[in-house]
Amino acid sequence: MKFKMIYSFLKSDIDLIEKELKTAIDSRSPLLNEASLHLLSAGGKRIRPVFVLLSAKFGDYDINSIKNVAVALELIHSASLVHDDVIDDADLRRGKPTIKSQWDNKTAMYTGDYIFARSLEYMTKIENEEAHKILSNAIVELTVGEIEQIKDKYRFEQGLKDYLRRIKRKTALLIAVSCQLGAIAAGAPSEIHRKLYRFGYYVGMSFQITDDILDFTASEKELGKPAGSDLLQGNITLPVLYAMNDPRLKERIINVNEEVDRAILKQVIEDIKGCGAIEQSHALSFRYLKKALEELEGLPKTSANKTLRDIANFIGKRKF
Amino acid sequence: MKFKMIYSFLKSDIDLIEKELKTAIDSRSPLLNEASLHLLSAGGKRIRPVFVLLSAKFGDYDINSIKNVAVALELIHSASLVHDDVIDDADLRRGKPTIKSQWDNKTAMYTGDYIFARSLEYMTKIENEEAHKILSNAIVELTVGEIEQIKDKYRFEQGLKDYLRRIKRKTALLIAVSCQLGAIAAGAPSEIHRKLYRFGYYVGMSFQITDDILDFTASEKELGKPAGSDLLQGNITLPVLYAMNDPRLKERIINVNEEVDRAILKQVIEDIKGCGAIEQSHALSFRYLKKALEELEGLPKTSANKTLRDIANFIGKRKF
Repeated sequence: MKFKMIYSFLKSDIDLIEKELKTAIDSRSPLLNEASLHLLSAGGKRIRPVFVLLSAKFGDYDINSIKNVAVALELIHSASLVHDDVIDDADLRRGKPTIKSQWDNKTAMYTGDYIFARSLEYMTKIENEEAHKILSNAIVELTVGEIEQIKDKYRFEQGLKDYLRRIKRKTALLIAVSCQLGAIAAGAPSEIHRKLYRFGYYVGMSFQITDDILDFTASEKELGKPAGSDLLQGNITLPVLYAMNDPRLKERIINVNEEVDRAILKQVIEDIKGCGAIEQSHALSFRYLKKALEELEGLPKTSANKTLRDIANFIGKRKF
Repeated sequence: MKFKMIYSFLKSDIDLIEKELKTAIDSRSPLLNEASLHLLSAGGKRIRPVFVLLSAKFGDYDINSIKNVAVALELIHSASLVHDDVIDDADLRRGKPTIKSQWDNKTAMYTGDYIFARSLEYMTKIENEEAHKILSNAIVELTVGEIEQIKDKYRFEQGLKDYLRRIKRKTALLIAVSCQLGAIAAGAPSEIHRKLYRFGYYVGMSFQITDDILDFTASEKELGKPAGSDLLQGNITLPVLYAMNDPRLKERIINVNEEVDRAILKQVIEDIKGCGAIEQSHALSFRYLKKALEELEGLPKTSANKTLRDIANFIGKRKF
């Protein structure tokens, strides 16, 4: 089943958000329009808007107010991707040239600034103080995460805790907040929106671990960038951490950097795949997924609940 | 008279804000702390906080709530400076190495992101929907301004309108908003905070024009960077626009770029200074200053009013 099929009943609302995203980034600057549209049309799964909408179903669902939360969150996510690509020197994202590679770092910087500024406009339409505080805190964590990610690069003496903190900031927090703010904007009570926050957090952790596994196991075509890109850029992900438990493999991993011979890289990737690290990573991803599903147990048994479960399961099992 | 002398009666409140700024940027990342502190301690005049406080005096002044507005605005301003230096490839600001020159563009990008994110936390403490809308709109304009500034670089066929729109976005808008939000946060009525907005706007325009004049007339020591830096970077400021009314001077100006011989640059600067362009620029700056003072006429004759007038006059006459 395709991801979009799971939430097909939301299609008209998602289409509305898609349209609103295009309106949101519209500016009088042709270069800015082109760069922003380039980014948005690269698409992605719009996971955050989907979570916002589904979580809002646990309250008083009104697409006209909920859409502002969804648009704000997707724009924040998009802006952070543009700046991430600068930090990671990434040339490809979802198979398309990144803004920093198609234009340059400066263009990427200010396109990110602009999209982020636009997201603020949508945030101000959410008339709820608590929502603002939750979101601004998440944005601080997101930016601190940017920096931690650089600091932790090629730092091979790190532990599971460092990794988990990093992916929390990078991915899980914004998904958690998408769920929580969707519910808050729909006026859901705190015991509901806090559960949805935790659900989003666990799903986000599982999602990012799966992403980090796929960087090793998926094909270049599926990834839209070469396999092993994370390792090559010095990003120490979960499979790498597990693989380094073998001292001999660890020594070879430590020697990987952007100048490494591609044949050697390929062999290291194969050995990481063969040493059990992928299975261990899947197991941890699955534990987070299970925790996510447990949170749903405590929520009303609605069709939104079922859809969130389907999405969580899809995310846990996805192949790319 | 020194700038700080004018508002000496605000000293304890400004000191409080200074302390709060340091708290605001505190993070667990040593690099980030260092870069952010480097930026904040380079200081600047804290014009925006001063305008916030003085404008708040037209309402129910409570430093504990007003300080959040002042800190948010100064952080937004600081964040935008860091990104501006990336865009302008500037190595010096206020006589100190910029973050992008002391570290690199990436560090500058995420330090700016981080400081900006912190400013949002202070914004959320302002419990006023109108304030949020005004500020988010100003931030959008600020980022659009970043881009327009790049687009307009070395574009010698531009007019006064382009220049004025650029400095509005770059400087005047945030000063206008500082005045307006200070008053709004203090519960001042709309006829007051709108007047203060216009006052700030006019002062900001006058301030930036003076800044652009000083780039030609002040010494390298006063500027903290070489004179004529704007022209060298292709930023077409008001004195340049006026100087280009002389076709022969225009041709020589057009040939200035970052590779130009320094002796030729020096002569072009001298000729811009000698052709009347500086006097014309002063005249326009003075017209804005006069409009600013007229707005104050319509406001209660308080000591805050007098101080705003003193600051405006100081800004109009400052030598560096």
